[in-house]
Amino acid sequence: MSAIAIARAAKSAFDKSQLISASERIDALSEIKNQLESMKDAVLVANGEDLRAAREEVDAGRMSESLLKRLDLGRGDKWDSMLQGISDVANLPDPNGKVTYASELDDGLELYRVSCPIGVLLVIFEARPEVVVNIAALAIKSGNAAILKGGKESNSTTKLLAQAIAAGLSKTSLPETYIQTIQTRAEVSSLLKLDEYIDLVIPRGSNSLVRDIQNNTRIPVMGHADGLCHVYLDETADLQKAIRVVVDSKTDYPSACNSTETLIVHESLVTTVWPEVATALINSKVKLLCDPTTLSSISALSDVDSYARPAQESDYDTEHLDLVLSVITVPSLQAAMQFINTHSSHHTDSIVSESELSISAFCRGIDSAGTFVNASTRFADGFRYGFGTEVGISTGKIHARGPVGLEGLVVYKYMLRSKADGGHIVGDFGTGKKQYKHAPINAEQVPF
Amino acid sequence: MSAIAIARAAKSAFDKSQLISASERIDALSEIKNQLESMKDAVLVANGEDLRAAREEVDAGRMSESLLKRLDLGRGDKWDSMLQGISDVANLPDPNGKVTYASELDDGLELYRVSCPIGVLLVIFEARPEVVVNIAALAIKSGNAAILKGGKESNSTTKLLAQAIAAGLSKTSLPETYIQTIQTRAEVSSLLKLDEYIDLVIPRGSNSLVRDIQNNTRIPVMGHADGLCHVYLDETADLQKAIRVVVDSKTDYPSACNSTETLIVHESLVTTVWPEVATALINSKVKLLCDPTTLSSISALSDVDSYARPAQESDYDTEHLDLVLSVITVPSLQAAMQFINTHSSHHTDSIVSESELSISAFCRGIDSAGTFVNASTRFADGFRYGFGTEVGISTGKIHARGPVGLEGLVVYKYMLRSKADGGHIVGDFGTGKKQYKHAPINAEQVPF
Repeated sequence: MSAIAIARAAKSAFDKSQLISASERIDALSEIKNQLESMKDAVLVANGEDLRAAREEVDAGRMSESLLKRLDLGRGDKWDSMLQGISDVANLPDPNGKVTYASELDDGLELYRVSCPIGVLLVIFEARPEVVVNIAALAIKSGNAAILKGGKESNSTTKLLAQAIAAGLSKTSLPETYIQTIQTRAEVSSLLKLDEYIDLVIPRGSNSLVRDIQNNTRIPVMGHADGLCHVYLDETADLQKAIRVVVDSKTDYPSACNSTETLIVHESLVTTVWPEVATALINSKVKLLCDPTTLSSISALSDVDSYARPAQESDYDTEHLDLVLSVITVPSLQAAMQFINTHSSHHTDSIVSESELSISAFCRGIDSAGTFVNASTRFADGFRYGFGTEVGISTGKIHARGPVGLEGLVVYKYMLRSKADGGHIVGDFGTGKKQYKHAPINAEQVPF
Repeated sequence: MSAIAIARAAKSAFDKSQLISASERIDALSEIKNQLESMKDAVLVANGEDLRAAREEVDAGRMSESLLKRLDLGRGDKWDSMLQGISDVANLPDPNGKVTYASELDDGLELYRVSCPIGVLLVIFEARPEVVVNIAALAIKSGNAAILKGGKESNSTTKLLAQAIAAGLSKTSLPETYIQTIQTRAEVSSLLKLDEYIDLVIPRGSNSLVRDIQNNTRIPVMGHADGLCHVYLDETADLQKAIRVVVDSKTDYPSACNSTETLIVHESLVTTVWPEVATALINSKVKLLCDPTTLSSISALSDVDSYARPAQESDYDTEHLDLVLSVITVPSLQAAMQFINTHSSHHTDSIVSESELSISAFCRGIDSAGTFVNASTRFADGFRYGFGTEVGISTGKIHARGPVGLEGLVVYKYMLRSKADGGHIVGDFGTGKKQYKHAPINAEQVPF
């Protein structure tokens, strides 16, 4: 199919799916799970092909060993947790049909704002083939049609996973084109132009993937390119909290977007708290890129020559994604906040502080999706937040921000119903005529 | 100032404004109102200049009389209602600081999702100069910095209004560059490229203005290009409701975006309800562009030759914005829904029906911001919905949809606070370690 045919099929599948009940969507998830179970051997054979091809790439130095590992669906409990993920999503509360505003505009004229799916999602991701199943489950549960593009390294695997999804859907009244997979970048390029049919693009992958997509579409994009997170050690920082939060934020999983890339130290801590934090970081094998003040105050530490060096200006705008941390001194909370608002990617920033004033100012003054207090930036995650799943993390400023759960895949519509004889018309209202009543209605669901 | 300097000043003003209290924002609105009162004569003199220049344009046939009227700030109660509008916005509930999700992730680790401003708004509108004041009030109340561009026809007036706003702001701790006005299209073009500094573009004006902006920026755009609304007369439509809803939807204010452009008639009504509706429309001087079925069934009506003619395919995708209505017959509710989902601009569509099944299906199956029952499409309006104000109407599929009140100018952030000794780190959780608690917290405001 051409890109436009795929997009039209998705839109049409979405329109047709609007009257399908939540329980039937749950049945569809269960059918897909059954199909996957019965196709397990075939999927793992296909996965083996992808792995063999990937091994050649690794041997030739064109692919990293860690990417190869992420391709492997047979590794550990990956297969089982992929299937468990489908059941987990099926069991989440339905995000649709919730009334968030209801008002009687006039006697017998009732307005309901009710959550509903967005429409057609285009989801582009890299490497891990199980994401196909994960995203398909999220889309079906939230009532959105989806077009999925995985990494080319996992093409054989995702083809089989897509077959299982289609076979599962065919046993329900959801259209088979409700979830479609595509294989080529050329298709992605064409689809990114079709804002008439596609409502939201969700890129999950490298900085360059996300940025490339953002630069090439008018369709709203939900995701994050950079994860430039900060920890700020306030004047009143507790030493133990400082050490624990900074080390965890940097070392728990350095290649994650919610890892910290820059440490900001209040100048009053430079010869007290900072050297102890630096020692803990060096013990964890973290390389430190320091401004002159923080560098000179740790010059006596052992191993400092191997682990600390002067920072360059660009280090404060770099997502290291490794055991590397930029460090800078500031004279005040205000300066720290200005630094973060300038250099942060608006993802997650944390303050270590015992001062209520500083805590309150930091949480309100930092323009990021997450503003944390005495806690590791690594907590910025949909599962840790309790959403049961994570669609992605958004650093955008509208719609959904931070870790995005199922709620980020819905929007709302207004339903207005007249129960009056003759219906309701605007011409009956105005000066000397009827006035609007605007009486709140207590409703959790639309009564019709 | 260059566009980039303007954008940076706005971003910096936004960052600085984050710690300013809601009450001080209300004070700022009151100062602006006072300034406008004291500058009334000067503003009206400037408005007179714009009006004289506009009169020349009208006389030369380059501007419409209605545009000239919209320029006139001294007309009727326009000045007073502009000032009253500031007080009305000031008195609305604060949209910020509301907790919409709160969870104890672990003992002493509390997560709050709290509403907060979006950042920097770029608002582009045409003609009516009082919109400058209206938008400035909305931005200040909602905590967003704004850059405003009015129509060039009102440049002299908006310059004075902007001076009054700046003078009002200077008496508060809000930065003077919190609200900036620009005058040229070149500045707009440059600003549309600065997605690093500008978070949301709100165009209010003609279809071509909105489309041009959508086509030329990566910044999210909130608004609507088309208002292609439909009324569908279901098999079970009540005659009186049909007549009243269709006539009001078409004639109450034909140039408004929520006016109906196409009437869809179930084939069972073609010789019963439809001719009566057509008679009422013709009596209201509405031109009818009909498909063969609806045209032939009204051939005997008086005046039909002057008011009805065959429709062309393109008429069903045209926003007439005038006393013109496209009409088409469909064999079923399903066909009507498919027609609307294909031709609608996803703004507002209404069904006239007595069938609970049809009503329920229509409200769920139509993918529009408003799905109405036995009510005029003209009700799609922020004031009528009870929002107290209207930022605009959005036909987008994410963030805010339909009439947008103050809530559309806010997003949320996550604040996470550890109260535990040693703070909280992710490394303490996992298999064989601590488990997440995810206990709901009952809170309307963040307690720190």
